[in-house]
Amino acid sequence: MKKFMDEDFLLTNKTASKLYHDYAENLPIIDYHCHLSPKEIYDDKPYENIAEIWLSGDHYKWRAMRANGVPEKYFTEETSDYEKFKMWAETLEAAIGNPLFHWSHLELKRYFGYDGVLNRETCDTVWNHCNDIIKKEQLSPRKFIKKSGVKVICTTDDPADDLIWHEKLRWEDGMVSVYPSFRPDKALYIEKADYAEYIKRLSDAVSSPIRSFAELIKTLKQRMDQFDIMGCRVSDHGLSYVMYEDFKEQEADRIFKDRLRGKDISESDERKFKTALLVNLAKEYKEKNWVMQLHFGVQRDLNRKIYERFGADAGIDAISDKIDAIELGRFLNALNEANALPKTILYSLNPADNAILDSIIGCFQDGGCVGKIQHGAAWWFNDHKTGIIEHLTSVGNMGLLGNFIGMLTDSRSFLSYARHEYFRRILCDFIGNLVEAGEYPDDENMLKKIVEGICYKNAERYFDFC
Amino acid sequence: MKKFMDEDFLLTNKTASKLYHDYAENLPIIDYHCHLSPKEIYDDKPYENIAEIWLSGDHYKWRAMRANGVPEKYFTEETSDYEKFKMWAETLEAAIGNPLFHWSHLELKRYFGYDGVLNRETCDTVWNHCNDIIKKEQLSPRKFIKKSGVKVICTTDDPADDLIWHEKLRWEDGMVSVYPSFRPDKALYIEKADYAEYIKRLSDAVSSPIRSFAELIKTLKQRMDQFDIMGCRVSDHGLSYVMYEDFKEQEADRIFKDRLRGKDISESDERKFKTALLVNLAKEYKEKNWVMQLHFGVQRDLNRKIYERFGADAGIDAISDKIDAIELGRFLNALNEANALPKTILYSLNPADNAILDSIIGCFQDGGCVGKIQHGAAWWFNDHKTGIIEHLTSVGNMGLLGNFIGMLTDSRSFLSYARHEYFRRILCDFIGNLVEAGEYPDDENMLKKIVEGICYKNAERYFDFC
Amino acid sequence: MKKFMDEDFLLTNKTASKLYHDYAENLPIIDYHCHLSPKEIYDDKPYENIAEIWLSGDHYKWRAMRANGVPEKYFTEETSDYEKFKMWAETLEAAIGNPLFHWSHLELKRYFGYDGVLNRETCDTVWNHCNDIIKKEQLSPRKFIKKSGVKVICTTDDPADDLIWHEKLRWEDGMVSVYPSFRPDKALYIEKADYAEYIKRLSDAVSSPIRSFAELIKTLKQRMDQFDIMGCRVSDHGLSYVMYEDFKEQEADRIFKDRLRGKDISESDERKFKTALLVNLAKEYKEKNWVMQLHFGVQRDLNRKIYERFGADAGIDAISDKIDAIELGRFLNALNEANALPKTILYSLNPADNAILDSIIGCFQDGGCVGKIQHGAAWWFNDHKTGIIEHLTSVGNMGLLGNFIGMLTDSRSFLSYARHEYFRRILCDFIGNLVEAGEYPDDENMLKKIVEGICYKNAERYFDFC
Repeated sequence: MKKFMDEDFLLTNKTASKLYHDYAENLPIIDYHCHLSPKEIYDDKPYENIAEIWLSGDHYKWRAMRANGVPEKYFTEETSDYEKFKMWAETLEAAIGNPLFHWSHLELKRYFGYDGVLNRETCDTVWNHCNDIIKKEQLSPRKFIKKSGVKVICTTDDPADDLIWHEKLRWEDGMVSVYPSFRPDKALYIEKADYAEYIKRLSDAVSSPIRSFAELIKTLKQRMDQFDIMGCRVSDHGLSYVMYEDFKEQEADRIFKDRLRGKDISESDERKFKTALLVNLAKEYKEKNWVMQLHFGVQRDLNRKIYERFGADAGIDAISDKIDAIELGRFLNALNEANALPKTILYSLNPADNAILDSIIGCFQDGGCVGKIQHGAAWWFNDHKTGIIEHLTSVGNMGLLGNFIGMLTDSRSFLSYARHEYFRRILCDFIGNLVEAGEYPDDENMLKKIVEGICYKNAERYFDFC
Repeated sequence: MKKFMDEDFLLTNKTASKLYHDYAENLPIIDYHCHLSPKEIYDDKPYENIAEIWLSGDHYKWRAMRANGVPEKYFTEETSDYEKFKMWAETLEAAIGNPLFHWSHLELKRYFGYDGVLNRETCDTVWNHCNDIIKKEQLSPRKFIKKSGVKVICTTDDPADDLIWHEKLRWEDGMVSVYPSFRPDKALYIEKADYAEYIKRLSDAVSSPIRSFAELIKTLKQRMDQFDIMGCRVSDHGLSYVMYEDFKEQEADRIFKDRLRGKDISESDERKFKTALLVNLAKEYKEKNWVMQLHFGVQRDLNRKIYERFGADAGIDAISDKIDAIELGRFLNALNEANALPKTILYSLNPADNAILDSIIGCFQDGGCVGKIQHGAAWWFNDHKTGIIEHLTSVGNMGLLGNFIGMLTDSRSFLSYARHEYFRRILCDFIGNLVEAGEYPDDENMLKKIVEGICYKNAERYFDFC
Repeated sequence: MKKFMDEDFLLTNKTASKLYHDYAENLPIIDYHCHLSPKEIYDDKPYENIAEIWLSGDHYKWRAMRANGVPEKYFTEETSDYEKFKMWAETLEAAIGNPLFHWSHLELKRYFGYDGVLNRETCDTVWNHCNDIIKKEQLSPRKFIKKSGVKVICTTDDPADDLIWHEKLRWEDGMVSVYPSFRPDKALYIEKADYAEYIKRLSDAVSSPIRSFAELIKTLKQRMDQFDIMGCRVSDHGLSYVMYEDFKEQEADRIFKDRLRGKDISESDERKFKTALLVNLAKEYKEKNWVMQLHFGVQRDLNRKIYERFGADAGIDAISDKIDAIELGRFLNALNEANALPKTILYSLNPADNAILDSIIGCFQDGGCVGKIQHGAAWWFNDHKTGIIEHLTSVGNMGLLGNFIGMLTDSRSFLSYARHEYFRRILCDFIGNLVEAGEYPDDENMLKKIVEGICYKNAERYFDFC
């Protein structure tokens, strides 16, 4: 029996252990997609206690706690931080097999030097232990970033955002690179009630009116220029599915104007407008040599009662079975035919789509770049050992795993860098297993190149941060 | 090499073996969902021979035999019991990897003390061996139930059923609890040709007319009261998919009345009516603290020639790819918004839906109950080692496996309790593997609690049988 | 650690090794579905070099090279064979986990006696080594076929094809059986622009006009008679999905005539026509005791720029998520009700459909034949270790694995017979694992029967080649 989460956690053979400890473990982290707040990084306010860090906004943990029958008051100010923490400790007992169990214990080890188990019995010990360290070391966002060996952080930002925190962070001494990512979801979601309001906000951001589709594009390009200056090299889109509907620029213009006048638009018009906008944006991404991320296969805010109480990102999202493989192919082809297909990362939340994505990706690779189209790392509900292995297996089966750009955190928490360790261990074990089984040569140079590539160097090359 | 199906069958490491033999093996069984006949239990007629027990109505075995080229006459009275048994013995030879192979041999071991292999060579030996024991021990339904350590059986019953056999069974000495489950499929399937006929039958059962949607609801509630008195704590619905369509009570009433007058109804009306009825029923389940089971992802009676000959449940059903994850979410949300979401178990027949279900389930857990919404055990075509492991993995990855309510038989056969042994072995191995790999602490108290919970105690608490 | 791809490659235990080396390894090959050119077999032109064999038309390899950033000129005459080969050697380095890595090295071993690794460093050595052997042994199509122990080859042929090369091959000394397969896709794809043109070509092939649906059927039957004489026992259909729409013969006739007159037809008419034609063809397949293959779940030619340059089969196809499980069931039922369901092999390109297919297959097995309906071997994008294991597991879980008819190449390359070795090793390991785990009896006779059956004898019986 292996010891619980020891130094060879998840490493089941010698090759895996060697690859991890010799090559993967100490590489820096490029976190090319996360939801960290640049303001929080700038402010760098020390934390009060472990519950503040872990439980104030982590909807992954809220979901688990609800599944343990924990009432909603534990996610509000009605309860104390200690009470919240206690509920979490009890919840963990039932979380056998869940990545939250592993992440939590990895975080306790790496950031607090606590090697034991957290459960209802050890709850108080862990509470005191962590809070002592938090106080003693004055733990704050930047301290966690530093401890984690992070080199680049790409936050997620709205085009209307003024990027003031990114600007300030540029001039901070010894700071890692914190770049914005361009996520124009709100400019795309034309069906939403507050669309006109958002367009107004966007227009204010450039102090110039947006009265037509052309002006919308122009404004977004202006913002992209500004994002680019701040180091942005990557955009992001959250979509229920990737659609493609033939459109004419004039139609997009008509639909946009109708909507600004408060008209409801048809589903077909919504699809036309979104396709038109995405195609125009992609052209510009290509132009700027940015990477386009497409996140899809999600349905959001299913539980309206919780939504009314907490708003979005409250642990009430789920996987959708409604991606459309044929439209996804058409969309990529339309970009490609227009010479507007940028480097692209596809993420579907439905793990049953892995093979579909890898097969479509293979149709659009080209001489422009090594691994131009990427199948993004196992995402959100799939970010566990099984999900990571299934993703690596699918990429390996159908593409070139050696060119994969690796892990991101997608997180709101400064402790989530432990997920990179989690990923790297699983990756090294995956590769180690192939080698030990005689399915790949035991050639240290090649293996080093592959492991360092996936953990760090491929992303460095692919995103081409300054 | 491990010996064929020895005492450590499916247990691949020490922890697994210990967990199974020390904790899981001897726990009683709560069979909270099956298709056993309460009349057969009451009558308790001794069997004639092993073929009667195994082959008279087990459509799982018929499918396998057809795949071996066995003609239909072997499922009718045209052939003798011995001939049927011989065909089954030959079929088993090709059934490598199939759970029927394991279940059959587990049943031979546990109920007949036969440790060998059944194939065309041993066919006669096994035939004689089993039949001798059947005769000597006068094996009958209740004897199998007793041998299996069953504590609770929930049969599947129509609201129009008078529950007379359940009533009689209550007063039998030394009898395990046999409760009805409420399965109002026929009241829901408004599109069926014999719908009006069924409503008449239901109306007769309460000696009161059903002329409106309100009277339908009233009648079903009356029947639920009666079921409740007989110990019922769980309902069940068989659906091709879980739908949600906005409706008004008056619409449901209009549709219901149209249908009773023999009118064909549109697909949209069918969806409205079904949504309306399910929502009303769920409210009552919630009220009564019953559990609602939703079985979906099925297409039935595909082979019409066999259907014409044998009717339903003849081994001609299949998995449907038409569940709708978005409507499922809307349905659960509609119940939740109406404070009408009872404890609920979701089962999809399509194993590709595992992650989708677990992600949706996580959105509707709440403080009302530990593990309020459950992902039902691997079901029907998925009730094999792979399917069980994939289900446990998915629940573990995305929810709290420790709160899972465990296995059921879903069977028509009194020998099927061997499936609980099968499940428990796989469960213990699954958990043992995590512990041996250092992915969960080797804490005997915790592991005991988890194993006993999933095998027995969680269901006991969840269903709250008297 | 096992040595890289040694004699026990993919064989992880003693039983697996024994089963492979004693029973599977030396069985002949029945390649019941491939895309080899009968003309090339007849011409038997010796190859120039390894690049000609490997890279002139293998779109699997093109896809991998594009994923490594290799520009399109390497798939044209703009670059030399050596340059192409070099690009391929470099690409392989990143192909960890990819079956191309294994296939390439198996081919180097079996056909060229090269046991090392191919990468950018060994590129020249391998280039020279292979080319020397090609020259020395005058390696040609028939030499590869002979070296591979092939007994039957079924090519893929259009009804309008005159089968002249098959005819010539019949009279060649010492030649393996090369039979045509009947693939009337072009007669089915009524929506295509060149449909009328194709019907003209088909009409010319029989020197008789095709002016009606009845004449189309008559002509296709005439061609089937001719194919049958040439040894054909199997048909094949490539479909995006298997559809079923109720039709009348007169409707099919009207649609067909409309189309010949150049009219565009509605989607519903397209579906009616295709259903009608497939049902009529299936009747005839049944009559002739042919096997019907249905390949579906594909979307083709996604990347139009590459398609414009290279045409079809250029590595730009993908998996579709649009099979319809319910229509597939209806189609099979319609054939069955008309006593027109031939032996049938179903292949879906979407691995998420495995369980769905196996569940539908189980509904249509009958006494006519052992394993009448088959789930075809892991196909195309699924033809890797994971895909093969998942297919075997699914067939084992839900059907009778012992009756599976085994592997095919589906290939355009004469070296692809290595894929049979790949499959056989994985199969023997799969079975060996079950035996070593005590999940199947260690009965050598039974295991031999199963292994020999799946590798060779089941196909021999099933197809019933003369």
